[in-house]
Amino acid sequence: MLTANDKKIAFGPEVELDGIPNLFAPQTVKPFTPPPSGIDNLGIVSTDTFMVPGVGEDTVDFKGWVRVARSKPTAEAWDGAEVYTNLIEMYMHGTSARFGEIIVRLQPEVLSTGMIRTPFGDSDRTQAAKACRMAVGAEFELPKLGMVLFNKEPIELTIDNVRSIPPAGNPGNGQIYNLLPLFSRDAPNTAPVAYLTSLKFQMGTYLTEDQLEGR
Amino acid sequence: MLTANDKKIAFGPEVELDGIPNLFAPQTVKPFTPPPSGIDNLGIVSTDTFMVPGVGEDTVDFKGWVRVARSKPTAEAWDGAEVYTNLIEMYMHGTSARFGEIIVRLQPEVLSTGMIRTPFGDSDRTQAAKACRMAVGAEFELPKLGMVLFNKEPIELTIDNVRSIPPAGNPGNGQIYNLLPLFSRDAPNTAPVAYLTSLKFQMGTYLTEDQLEGR
Repeated sequence: MLTANDKKIAFGPEVELDGIPNLFAPQTVKPFTPPPSGIDNLGIVSTDTFMVPGVGEDTVDFKGWVRVARSKPTAEAWDGAEVYTNLIEMYMHGTSARFGEIIVRLQPEVLSTGMIRTPFGDSDRTQAAKACRMAVGAEFELPKLGMVLFNKEPIELTIDNVRSIPPAGNPGNGQIYNLLPLFSRDAPNTAPVAYLTSLKFQMGTYLTEDQLEGR
Repeated sequence: MLTANDKKIAFGPEVELDGIPNLFAPQTVKPFTPPPSGIDNLGIVSTDTFMVPGVGEDTVDFKGWVRVARSKPTAEAWDGAEVYTNLIEMYMHGTSARFGEIIVRLQPEVLSTGMIRTPFGDSDRTQAAKACRMAVGAEFELPKLGMVLFNKEPIELTIDNVRSIPPAGNPGNGQIYNLLPLFSRDAPNTAPVAYLTSLKFQMGTYLTEDQLEGR
């Protein structure tokens, strides 16, 4: 893995990885309690719809894992605490009847970043649910079509009603307005060759190191 | 202005600028007719809401202009034609009671890109309205606060019901889910110092070269 400093593009602040613990199952997550910094190794499932002009559309179920580095919270109490995140590794796989197997990883040259904070409208409430957002640079490998697709505008993943960190079990959405262009690694500077048109996901719980299949 | 090749980040394809005409007022725009490539010099107004934690929120009316380079359409007929766009220059100014004067320009190191195409669900219809989207890297200069703010995730500007190109007069939205982080040029790698929480805009008509105030 490249370090953040080697990355060409960062969508937000880097989380310092030195000395922070790598957290595998089992873990106890306390509600309304900002946890110390760490790297969460979590399951994830996602249902993504791809449109390839001239080929067609398909909706694909993915399963895999993410590794999310979390910063030291900006406050010890839940209220007011902000946490910055980096998605440092991701692996998901799914199978499309139309496109064949699809493997999703992070773009090595992009730092995918996010944050967890209380929505501004709720910031006077105590124990308000927080909102989580992450801007992701992903790569979609489609061996059957001999293609690797990637996004240039980040895929914006959002999770609402965050009552514990990490928000294990929460559903989330990719904030896609109509379409998000995907480009081909073979011709990265030409027009998009495919589009993501919908993305819904759900965070899983902590995994053991052995469960990080495909790493 | 840097050329696209000098830019560190491109959110989409570059539009070739060599030899394409610079279009000022007056121009005749034909509905449902993909126009030849050109650079549109258009008015724009925008109403943006900024939240600066610890300082407060304000909604600011901006007025100014954009210069949008359009590619050769991918088809001569309206149906099926796609057009790629680069926002090559922007200038807007507004005044906030709280934050003082705000001047908006493009980030020189980012290629702000977009496209106009028929939404997939309407692609079998004739003379279907198209949708326009653009991913923008902007800079907000706040002289009173001595700050220059910029976004790292693109500001996603969308226009629906596009029946002519350019979509002069159409309203549009910034697709912001809760908040879009803004960073300070003085400390670009630290946490965001402000947020855009809402953005609504309206495209104006062609301007004369003299109307490009602040250029």
